[in-house]
Amino acid sequence: MDQFERLSQLPLRDDLRGRHPYGAPQLDVPILLNVNENTFGVPLDAKEAILKAVADELDGLNRYPDREFTELRRALAAYLGHGLTEENIWAANGSNEVLQQLLQAFGGPGRSVMGFPPTYSMYPLLASGTGTDYVAGTRDGDFGLSAGSAAAQVRRQAPNVVLLCSPNNPTGTALGLDVVEAVYEAGEASKAIVIVDEAYAEFSHTGTPSALTLLEGRPRLVVSRTMSKAFALAGARVGYLASAPEVADAIRLVRLPYHLSAITQATAVAALRNSDSLLANVEAIKVQRDRIVTELEALGLTPAPSDSNFVFFGGLQSPQAVWEGLLAAGVLVRDVGIPGHLRVTAGTEAETTAFLDGLRTILAR
Amino acid sequence: MDQFERLSQLPLRDDLRGRHPYGAPQLDVPILLNVNENTFGVPLDAKEAILKAVADELDGLNRYPDREFTELRRALAAYLGHGLTEENIWAANGSNEVLQQLLQAFGGPGRSVMGFPPTYSMYPLLASGTGTDYVAGTRDGDFGLSAGSAAAQVRRQAPNVVLLCSPNNPTGTALGLDVVEAVYEAGEASKAIVIVDEAYAEFSHTGTPSALTLLEGRPRLVVSRTMSKAFALAGARVGYLASAPEVADAIRLVRLPYHLSAITQATAVAALRNSDSLLANVEAIKVQRDRIVTELEALGLTPAPSDSNFVFFGGLQSPQAVWEGLLAAGVLVRDVGIPGHLRVTAGTEAETTAFLDGLRTILAR
Repeated sequence: MDQFERLSQLPLRDDLRGRHPYGAPQLDVPILLNVNENTFGVPLDAKEAILKAVADELDGLNRYPDREFTELRRALAAYLGHGLTEENIWAANGSNEVLQQLLQAFGGPGRSVMGFPPTYSMYPLLASGTGTDYVAGTRDGDFGLSAGSAAAQVRRQAPNVVLLCSPNNPTGTALGLDVVEAVYEAGEASKAIVIVDEAYAEFSHTGTPSALTLLEGRPRLVVSRTMSKAFALAGARVGYLASAPEVADAIRLVRLPYHLSAITQATAVAALRNSDSLLANVEAIKVQRDRIVTELEALGLTPAPSDSNFVFFGGLQSPQAVWEGLLAAGVLVRDVGIPGHLRVTAGTEAETTAFLDGLRTILAR
Repeated sequence: MDQFERLSQLPLRDDLRGRHPYGAPQLDVPILLNVNENTFGVPLDAKEAILKAVADELDGLNRYPDREFTELRRALAAYLGHGLTEENIWAANGSNEVLQQLLQAFGGPGRSVMGFPPTYSMYPLLASGTGTDYVAGTRDGDFGLSAGSAAAQVRRQAPNVVLLCSPNNPTGTALGLDVVEAVYEAGEASKAIVIVDEAYAEFSHTGTPSALTLLEGRPRLVVSRTMSKAFALAGARVGYLASAPEVADAIRLVRLPYHLSAITQATAVAALRNSDSLLANVEAIKVQRDRIVTELEALGLTPAPSDSNFVFFGGLQSPQAVWEGLLAAGVLVRDVGIPGHLRVTAGTEAETTAFLDGLRTILAR
């Protein structure tokens, strides 16, 4: 009996049968540009601060952590600015868990969540995992999303929750705030919670406003963020949100008590105290990101405008062959399953050069 | 508008309205005997090993952690013994998350989970959070649960999941394996997943067998454990389970990718390598546990037999007054809401003495 047969004999939920676990391949390749990590790593001073903060927690590690992670919420509010306080903040083990908690509170059986594919591929899985119906909206031909189209779709579908990803993953492009405003208004009839997933916000072009500027007076609006990308802490698993205080109160009814370990809290607080150092490479990553766009255009490919630390590009006859060719050259990128397209993370200058050189060689064949 | 009014204006799920967040009060009291922590703390050698393990993770903290946490699963299997390998193990941020994942895979909308109150108060909340119906079975008059009664109830209710807590929280008493065997057989008709929550197993009296001994040949049986109690790592948030490999395969379909941080994985592996040191105080705690039972009986109270690191005791005219009196004396215990009863954690000898002295003074008034 193989693994699949064994699993099929268990009383698994029907809607999970035949599915495969989510996740990009974790391969041992020299240059990893597949999951939009910050490839510069954690600077020495931040590492030292994190280690000291963890050391300070060890004496009390036999005790349950602060269930309200107040110090972390305070540090996150101070980082975000916009007049936010700890009352406006919630955090969890990665923004996936933040989104899961939001769906547990505002979605769930008999309710729906709307997303606009191609977008972050966890959204339908988070819907399924919380028993929430996933309603797939449509984008314009160039993967864009206009205020008029988004609002009309939300008005028609009347979902309980809307997920707007900005900058969008996997396309990389930020939404205008007019889209968020229009969707929020359109969601008034169904009292929809509107979540703007800004996991990549720190990489936006200068002058791109955050949906944080819209929170005042919009109690159904939620902005989610992560420390996995710009903060170079994917391994520490810290996602968070900013919203009206009552959104956090709602999540308190569904969150598992003590969901954030004492060490996770200490790590994140130490990192936020060293945010200047941790975010120092963001500009360098943006330079490489813009370089990728420019050079891919010169190669006759069609990169999408990117406000993130990755570039989504089309114009490939065989993405699978290019993916394999790059892998053979020691560069791992992401095939997100969209015909003719691949996605690549902007890394260091050397990593970016390796990717571009590898791609040129493959395309020249 | 107060907090409750603000929350009521959000589109919260109907079944959450009017609820309060779960969690014991986190009060600043000298002697904390309310949440069954290991009050001895983490020994120095284990702290040093954990800190070194965390330090080794910092260079790669910009990368997502091993999604399969293979090293941790291997270390947990080695700790449990019984011929288990990493294929038999799953882990998450506390056993609450393990149980939540099991309910996402095997419970959920249209399905049911059965528990036998008084038992761990998170069970109905985990059911609610995953949209699973919670079916409350009944216990015998003395809070016990016989094989015949449990099996008959499971046969009648035909739940999709059964939760057996052994040693049971809040009563502290272990179930006989005959109960687990009978429930497993009774669950055959509904193909029920039978979970034995052994969070406190390490504190059982010598000779009390674990349900781990029943796993062979029972693919629907799951034994969950935690590092929060005997391992003195409540702050690190590590729960886990042992089962047939296909149970872990099922959870892979619902788990959030990278749910266990690199630091959590490293902390737990380092702790398991120092398990002798971390578990060294378990015997001392059992001595205090047995001392509490003996001395409470001498006081004319009715402690339940305990295989855990806490004692549940009845015979109180006003548990609330006793709880307040102990708090005034600097000792925090737990009022679990059962008339005439309180629950106290077995701590160090000095802490146990403070609790017993305080209680004697209050009862003598």
